[in-house]
Amino acid sequence: MSFSPLINELVSAFKILPGVGAKSAQRMAFSLLERNREGALHLSKVLHDAMEHVSHCEQCRTFTESRLCKICENPMRSESGQLCIVESPQDVLAIEQTSEYKGKYFVLMGHLSPIDGIGPAEIGLNELAELLIAESVSEVILATNPTVEGEATAHYIGQMCKEKDIKATRIAHGVPVGGELEYIDGNTLTHAFTGRRQF
Amino acid sequence: MSFSPLINELVSAFKILPGVGAKSAQRMAFSLLERNREGALHLSKVLHDAMEHVSHCEQCRTFTESRLCKICENPMRSESGQLCIVESPQDVLAIEQTSEYKGKYFVLMGHLSPIDGIGPAEIGLNELAELLIAESVSEVILATNPTVEGEATAHYIGQMCKEKDIKATRIAHGVPVGGELEYIDGNTLTHAFTGRRQF
Repeated sequence: MSFSPLINELVSAFKILPGVGAKSAQRMAFSLLERNREGALHLSKVLHDAMEHVSHCEQCRTFTESRLCKICENPMRSESGQLCIVESPQDVLAIEQTSEYKGKYFVLMGHLSPIDGIGPAEIGLNELAELLIAESVSEVILATNPTVEGEATAHYIGQMCKEKDIKATRIAHGVPVGGELEYIDGNTLTHAFTGRRQF
Repeated sequence: MSFSPLINELVSAFKILPGVGAKSAQRMAFSLLERNREGALHLSKVLHDAMEHVSHCEQCRTFTESRLCKICENPMRSESGQLCIVESPQDVLAIEQTSEYKGKYFVLMGHLSPIDGIGPAEIGLNELAELLIAESVSEVILATNPTVEGEATAHYIGQMCKEKDIKATRIAHGVPVGGELEYIDGNTLTHAFTGRRQF
């Protein structure tokens, strides 16, 4: 590359963003320089503030800049006694958007993956154990992803609940609404059949 | 959205980037928060510095943080007496990467587009007129894009050169190397035929 040093540095700094390669980074740098310096200065400031101040909710471990996130702060959320276990803050958003679930969350910020050195402590299962005792949780809903790691994590937490005599449920896996049977993979179809319900 | 306020602000700040919508912006914010806070702080700093310090080269109008860009500073570049007119700094990079051209550049930072209020003054043609006299330019190479606006801009600058009795040439348009004739549009093929050369 042969732009001026500062522009080169900006282009390579943009490449840390997921899905952004050399060409997109270049396009981003020039688009901001040409058309939106004010927006770029705002992005720079917010980016700095977020990286400095965003930490984890003390109760559910999701990202927040306060001590507790908005959901954990809300006393209404404790009423149902349900605790939904998810892998990431984005999963919380996805579930919240359905407006179906009224309980609390616990965000693992990952899943068990011994090969990467991620064991129960790394995904906060010690905090979870404490939480299960402190808050009188009546049902743990395991909403980890239906991947090998997600299933293993769900299984592990399910065992934890069993030892503590707390009811644990797993979200249903099957044919997505609007999906067509002929395009669904065999594994999902097997789940759909074993999980069938009285009509 | 129902993330914490600072995260919401970060996600919407990312949406000013070209080609970044709500989902990608969310992915960028969380990827940096989870995995690369140091890189993000560096991006924030470089972004701020670039927006504050990058301006235009006094001679060729490309982006640079110095008074003159590296190409304009280099006295070897004046030897050929050639001046290549391009629309954007990225075009300079593309031409430089061929290592074919050894002259200087003039970057219009756009093209004539009266409907958007972009006339000759906005694309620096006054500065170009001065430059043509100050630097003894022997050939102006018109390398604007082969679009309607690019052609109009090339035509306008071509006329300017004619009045000043300076040779003006237009880069060749035709079938790209490696391209297949059957997939080339008619307009390009017409150019390829009218621009044919002795074999």
